[in-house]
Amino acid sequence: MASSLLTRQLAISLQQNLRLAAPGSRYVSKTATKTVSEFENDAPSMKTAVPGPKSQELLRQLGEIQNVGAIHFFCNYEESRGNYLVDVDGNRMLDVYTQISSIPIGYNHPALMKVMTNPNNVSAFVNRPALGILPPENFPDKLIESLLSIAPSGMTRVQTMACGSCSNENAFKTMFIWYRNKERGYATPSEQEVGSCMINQSPGCPDLSVLSFMGAFHGRTMGCLATTHSKAIHKLDIPSFDWPIAPFPKLQYPLEEFVRENAQEEARCLEEVEDLIVKWRQKGKPVAGIVIEPIQAEGGDNHASPDFFIKLRNIARKHGCAFHVDEVQTGGGTTGKFWAHEHWGLDDPADVVSFSKKMLTGGYYHRDELQPDKPYRIFNTWMGDPSKNLFLSEVLNVIRRENLLEEVTRSGKALLQGLYALQTQYPHILSRARGQGTFCAIDACSDATRDSIMIKARNKGLFMGSCGERTIRFRPSLVFKEYHVHQLLNILNDVLAEHK
Amino acid sequence: MASSLLTRQLAISLQQNLRLAAPGSRYVSKTATKTVSEFENDAPSMKTAVPGPKSQELLRQLGEIQNVGAIHFFCNYEESRGNYLVDVDGNRMLDVYTQISSIPIGYNHPALMKVMTNPNNVSAFVNRPALGILPPENFPDKLIESLLSIAPSGMTRVQTMACGSCSNENAFKTMFIWYRNKERGYATPSEQEVGSCMINQSPGCPDLSVLSFMGAFHGRTMGCLATTHSKAIHKLDIPSFDWPIAPFPKLQYPLEEFVRENAQEEARCLEEVEDLIVKWRQKGKPVAGIVIEPIQAEGGDNHASPDFFIKLRNIARKHGCAFHVDEVQTGGGTTGKFWAHEHWGLDDPADVVSFSKKMLTGGYYHRDELQPDKPYRIFNTWMGDPSKNLFLSEVLNVIRRENLLEEVTRSGKALLQGLYALQTQYPHILSRARGQGTFCAIDACSDATRDSIMIKARNKGLFMGSCGERTIRFRPSLVFKEYHVHQLLNILNDVLAEHK
Repeated sequence: MASSLLTRQLAISLQQNLRLAAPGSRYVSKTATKTVSEFENDAPSMKTAVPGPKSQELLRQLGEIQNVGAIHFFCNYEESRGNYLVDVDGNRMLDVYTQISSIPIGYNHPALMKVMTNPNNVSAFVNRPALGILPPENFPDKLIESLLSIAPSGMTRVQTMACGSCSNENAFKTMFIWYRNKERGYATPSEQEVGSCMINQSPGCPDLSVLSFMGAFHGRTMGCLATTHSKAIHKLDIPSFDWPIAPFPKLQYPLEEFVRENAQEEARCLEEVEDLIVKWRQKGKPVAGIVIEPIQAEGGDNHASPDFFIKLRNIARKHGCAFHVDEVQTGGGTTGKFWAHEHWGLDDPADVVSFSKKMLTGGYYHRDELQPDKPYRIFNTWMGDPSKNLFLSEVLNVIRRENLLEEVTRSGKALLQGLYALQTQYPHILSRARGQGTFCAIDACSDATRDSIMIKARNKGLFMGSCGERTIRFRPSLVFKEYHVHQLLNILNDVLAEHK
Repeated sequence: MASSLLTRQLAISLQQNLRLAAPGSRYVSKTATKTVSEFENDAPSMKTAVPGPKSQELLRQLGEIQNVGAIHFFCNYEESRGNYLVDVDGNRMLDVYTQISSIPIGYNHPALMKVMTNPNNVSAFVNRPALGILPPENFPDKLIESLLSIAPSGMTRVQTMACGSCSNENAFKTMFIWYRNKERGYATPSEQEVGSCMINQSPGCPDLSVLSFMGAFHGRTMGCLATTHSKAIHKLDIPSFDWPIAPFPKLQYPLEEFVRENAQEEARCLEEVEDLIVKWRQKGKPVAGIVIEPIQAEGGDNHASPDFFIKLRNIARKHGCAFHVDEVQTGGGTTGKFWAHEHWGLDDPADVVSFSKKMLTGGYYHRDELQPDKPYRIFNTWMGDPSKNLFLSEVLNVIRRENLLEEVTRSGKALLQGLYALQTQYPHILSRARGQGTFCAIDACSDATRDSIMIKARNKGLFMGSCGERTIRFRPSLVFKEYHVHQLLNILNDVLAEHK
């Protein structure tokens, strides 16, 4: 099952550790040595409530230019180090949200600073090329040493893009092109197709669809947005496509107690997927591709079992739909494997895998047969940014050199164990602790309680993210050690102890 | 009219200059001093045909990873300077395409190199923030000193984005949100709206539309792509929206000889716009916004008169549609004004103006009343990239310090004059020379001839772009001087003289 990390042994050991989580008591790292990099600060340090006065003044200024309702505070990125984000009022917080999960190895990592000071790299920053027509000399080598060195199983081809939404949009287009080429037997498009596409009409712009899942988040440009179903605020007032939406399994926790119910729930969702594929084909809007996150993130950290994904992949194959795994948030090592879908144990897990965030560049991998048949079908001015590839190369070096995937697995176990302990201790407040690697989450009893816990924790120096309706999500960087887990749990414990 | 730069005086003077363009004769700058920056090389220098052997080997390597059909050659960006792009085979070309019009002040400009070596800037590169929730301290100041210092008339608000497509997608969303808020009288959305939007259905996802023009290019993500109508290869096989598409005026050249016909053509197009707005309202798909380029670029460098745009802006206002001017390619100074729409002479030219390319960051300006009413309605992880804003600030400094808009006007006049001379001399090959600033174009008699001229010119050290069906487009950077115009015209003249 999804939370297979939580073995029975672990469940027992966390019971034994419960006393550590009693109010007032402190988590102390016994097994792990303090492995914080030398460049990092070693603890939160708070000077004001957050946002402090300087942040509030800057909020007022920026409010003249933009809607600032989503801004938490203003940051001093120069002073931030490793896992610690410093704000403009001098508050230093343990950051387990990391710019919406997009800082791979902490703030101001020395390896990344070196990229900047290497004179050989300057030109890649000041001359951003149109990669699709005039790539730099080292472009194939850089792709091989960075993106292709971590390519998912079965994927030999990769296309860089600027951001997560662009990556998914172009992945969808790649699936549509592939699907229509199959349908027309790779023949030359008809004159009618060529003519009608210019005015947005079929058959040139065919009524194809992408099947997505309730609770999914795949981005906010209009193609992606038609597959995003996590929050109304993302979608309200924006025209969309009539594409099929399947239920995502709603698992009951603790997983060990609901094995049969959860298996039934997953079977129900898979049945619905097949029904929708048939129904949309009958409607004249065939499903060209299925898109899914290995863990629904924005939608509330919803997990499903490897068995669910394996069966879904088979359904896609059976019905001739491309299978697109969106690893924009789950990719880059945060689950303890480089790609979350590697936990499924398949040799042939997907046709398309998209990425962004921790990868610093957007893009997507795909199988050979999804290669567009002609140039300029998948294209834009920049097609990514080679300066981001330089940073990614260094990030991968650091991940390998410092065995960060093992660290993530170790820290993730400690974090999940701690969250289990907290929910056992505060069952009226917390429930459904879950996670893979450090990609962890826990639910509060209400959205108001969740928000209150987050604000109180922030004022004590712990900055967390939210998702779904009442979920706290943990998205630390890959340099998040057991030592930091204990800081996190101590602060959370203090907040919960005060929460009456 | 659009080509108002070409006064009758200019037409006469170019007749007088014709002798200079005779085969074998050379353009020599008489009035302009040689104003090439000291950091730049001073002429093309060719060692091989293009692509040379090294480019061909790299093409083979990259072909294992991506479709490489659109790649011209591989570049040595380190060795490129100013207006000269150097390839991996050591060929130095005068570049008047500049990475699809996205290099504002030439290659390796010293001012941009300095941004990289300033230690205060390092953190902006290595810690890319989630700008919508955790902006850096200097973010409001940087917006004020860069983007807002060049804000179009009537625009006080600006939102940065990663690329041109993202900018237009979010500009469309901004218009939809504004339109629906107007429709519902700024009341809270109904439960039915909130519920239905989660499954892509109306009323929550309303059947609103954006009116665009035949020949337009606004990007390739699925919302943008529904307003793009320049080439079938962009659109084939991709599902789209049933949105209205108006004809863009097809002006006859020389403009002086077809004043009445062109005015009638523009009137016909405007009438069609109004008809479509009414028709789509009746269809239940009201037009929330009109999007247009000041000069259709990708579609073939199609111009219309200021009078056309003024009337179009009035039609938008009359029908309650937002008016979105897409300056992704025309913006940034290339027409001799910072924004091409400034040539229309309106105090109130638009509701939304989008940009990217030469601006180095994507984004869009908008009027106060289009500000989204709630946070997270316009949102994504990165919301732009502050490191690009640093470069933009320097670009603006250089533009001001070196009076580059005046230079563009001067070089543009020389270029257009030269193109007129060439088309007079080679009337069987060239026609319809047109332009504003250095944003110039000329048509060949066929696509095959156009392509052949471009390849021959490239082998002589002049790298140009194409657009439309048989157009050569000139998109030099802003440091393109009269001296470079003469190099360009000499090479083109040689190619045409050999072309029989």
